[in-house]
Amino acid sequence: MDALSSSPAPPHRVVIVGGGFAGLYAALALKRAPVQVTLIDRRNFHLFQPLLYQVATGTLSPGDIASPLRGVLKRQRNTQVLLAEVVDVDAVQRRVVLSDGELGYDTLIVATGSSHHYFGNEQWASLAPGLKTVEDALEMRRRILLAFEAAEREPDADLRRAWLTFVLVGAGPTGVELAGALGEIARHTLQRDFRTINPADAHILLVEVADRILPPFAPTLSAQAAAHLTRLGVTVLTGARVTGIDAESVTLHRGGASERLSTRTVLWAAGVAASPLGRVLQQRTGATIDRAGRVVVESDCSVPGHPEIFVIGDLACCMPPGGAPLPGLAPVAMQQGQYVAKRVRRRLRGDGCEPFRYFDYGTMAVIGRGAAVAQIRSLHFDGFLAWVAWVFIHIMRLVEYDNRVLVFVQWAMNYFTWNRGARLMTGESSLPLRRGT
Amino acid sequence: MDALSSSPAPPHRVVIVGGGFAGLYAALALKRAPVQVTLIDRRNFHLFQPLLYQVATGTLSPGDIASPLRGVLKRQRNTQVLLAEVVDVDAVQRRVVLSDGELGYDTLIVATGSSHHYFGNEQWASLAPGLKTVEDALEMRRRILLAFEAAEREPDADLRRAWLTFVLVGAGPTGVELAGALGEIARHTLQRDFRTINPADAHILLVEVADRILPPFAPTLSAQAAAHLTRLGVTVLTGARVTGIDAESVTLHRGGASERLSTRTVLWAAGVAASPLGRVLQQRTGATIDRAGRVVVESDCSVPGHPEIFVIGDLACCMPPGGAPLPGLAPVAMQQGQYVAKRVRRRLRGDGCEPFRYFDYGTMAVIGRGAAVAQIRSLHFDGFLAWVAWVFIHIMRLVEYDNRVLVFVQWAMNYFTWNRGARLMTGESSLPLRRGT
Repeated sequence: MDALSSSPAPPHRVVIVGGGFAGLYAALALKRAPVQVTLIDRRNFHLFQPLLYQVATGTLSPGDIASPLRGVLKRQRNTQVLLAEVVDVDAVQRRVVLSDGELGYDTLIVATGSSHHYFGNEQWASLAPGLKTVEDALEMRRRILLAFEAAEREPDADLRRAWLTFVLVGAGPTGVELAGALGEIARHTLQRDFRTINPADAHILLVEVADRILPPFAPTLSAQAAAHLTRLGVTVLTGARVTGIDAESVTLHRGGASERLSTRTVLWAAGVAASPLGRVLQQRTGATIDRAGRVVVESDCSVPGHPEIFVIGDLACCMPPGGAPLPGLAPVAMQQGQYVAKRVRRRLRGDGCEPFRYFDYGTMAVIGRGAAVAQIRSLHFDGFLAWVAWVFIHIMRLVEYDNRVLVFVQWAMNYFTWNRGARLMTGESSLPLRRGT
Repeated sequence: MDALSSSPAPPHRVVIVGGGFAGLYAALALKRAPVQVTLIDRRNFHLFQPLLYQVATGTLSPGDIASPLRGVLKRQRNTQVLLAEVVDVDAVQRRVVLSDGELGYDTLIVATGSSHHYFGNEQWASLAPGLKTVEDALEMRRRILLAFEAAEREPDADLRRAWLTFVLVGAGPTGVELAGALGEIARHTLQRDFRTINPADAHILLVEVADRILPPFAPTLSAQAAAHLTRLGVTVLTGARVTGIDAESVTLHRGGASERLSTRTVLWAAGVAASPLGRVLQQRTGATIDRAGRVVVESDCSVPGHPEIFVIGDLACCMPPGGAPLPGLAPVAMQQGQYVAKRVRRRLRGDGCEPFRYFDYGTMAVIGRGAAVAQIRSLHFDGFLAWVAWVFIHIMRLVEYDNRVLVFVQWAMNYFTWNRGARLMTGESSLPLRRGT
């Protein structure tokens, strides 16, 4: 008896690959469509990535920003969730190839996102972890806390200083948010935790190759964000390129000179590369991919020559007429997901659809408690008001109500006590590295 | 410059090994004593183990039941926390040997607890994970959720049934609590999550070698607990011994006959063995250890012939006059910690101290939502009242206020929605195991 075929096959099979913002919002927007939806993901949960840095810095637990995909879609009877990995696409036979099976589609929506990359220096991956998965965040958290522990036990002043030096590579929103959170941890959260070191002595360096931090924001907001960070004890180094990373140092190239900095903790918030499925689609459909590995899509997010295949989210290189490619942001992904769902519904009815148009509600980055920058079209503001807006929007955007309550409670407690309860080091080695002496 | 010697040495050095209930409560009770306390643990957090099964079953996140040791002790200026592993004790020179250093003591308090063990079948460890650490709990959670995922994708009815069969070995409080939570997950939490299986078809077997579950409780409470579990769909098998575990089955011996059960998920809640430091103390001090590896201590919890060495908590075999050894429960450990701290304070003043006496406030076990059993001396009760008492006591006992708020919020949400938000599978393989076909 084949359990999968016990119900009559619905007319149109939509397969969505990836349960991030793009894929999940596409699935949700197909709720009442006369289609059979299969959402495939390697993980059993949707991750609210904009808050992942708060897991890395001990404010939130992974469970607070993860929603089980089955739970989110449980009442959507036309949708099933498949925990599986897609390794190939057969665009002729219209089948996706899983690592352990196959699945046919009538419409395919690929939304497998991106991961961090190291601009050809992939050997840096183990030295300077990035921040894309729950495991990444827990590893970052472990390294940050371990560095303070190791400094506490280190009798040599130079080595202690190296343990207390944190280098963040890349000053986009993630880098800025990590730097701000690290500044607060060093100055406030750990204030009385140690007996031989003063955590406020930590050197937090935010390194950016552009001439200012938060390059997508207006220059005035970049300057305000930099000023906030400086007040939290963060040293902002713009126009600086990382040319080397090893277990004990980082080499920076800045203004024609090279400098080697002793550090044991380098965190990567710089490069982003599209998921390998971009290359697969290139081979199988003849689509073009850009330098970051993203698939160049039509104005309706479909792959040229394959109106039945859509690519959305971070994996898509989506160019509005006459404009630059849309950035890899959660709102872009959500809107594309909803747009593609509408496109599918209308196509089934035989109707057309205008091209995808991104509505920019604005972008924000948080720097610390009560400090953020926000840019809503021509409106630029920073400080407490921007921070309240950031808190409100991020709470409301969490997919599940449970998560909203939990995150709100933790933020409220963090706000009033500076405490970060989720400061546990887990995983393989939670002991300070063995000293050479 | 040696940072560790920058302050004048206080008169009396108390070294506490282990930050569980016994060690942490000893440290806290030495707050105002004229001693220098060093609390050594391999982990940077105190874990509220009685709620670990709720992490394993997706109700709570690890951060909710963990309190950073440095945070708990930050205002206790006579105390420092050392993240390190103790590998040996030099009882003559009065030094503990760390994996990366040494540390002298005047009074040593050893409270390194216990871990699960397999009665000589240590090869079962990877097949049937136990529940002692955060990592154990996340591994259990991963296996439980993975089994439902694998069943959803399994076309073969027999294999599907094997994936949906969960065997819990040992019906002490942990086994009973796990079984109850699993029953709720299968019947309520996952009710609408799947499309090809019905999670309520899960077979949950609770296997106990004694003739009833919860052997330390009164027989009437055991019977009530068993009735509650049966209502949750749990099959209780008493008088049954596990004689074999492999990747695809469990062999049970019961009533003179052997039976082989197909299952892919075996969870271990049976044997407990004392930490290896018990054996170290035996070698270094001539102390006796019992069959479970626990150090037999004097009536004041000290090691015979070594009044300066105390062993408390699960590692101690502490026998009240004429009674049986005290059980390995959190209240025993807390009271021993507080007692030993008092003993140290009084000894420094030249005063004596009565022997340790355990005050039994009662024991409880929770079976599910609104169902628990409680035994407070001659008072035995079950049902909703016992459950409310359990909730209240466990919330109040959480070391940090932050955790109390978070756990309360999550329980409240779980109670009203049946939802378990922390159902994420993390770690190495979050994909269903490859099928043979």
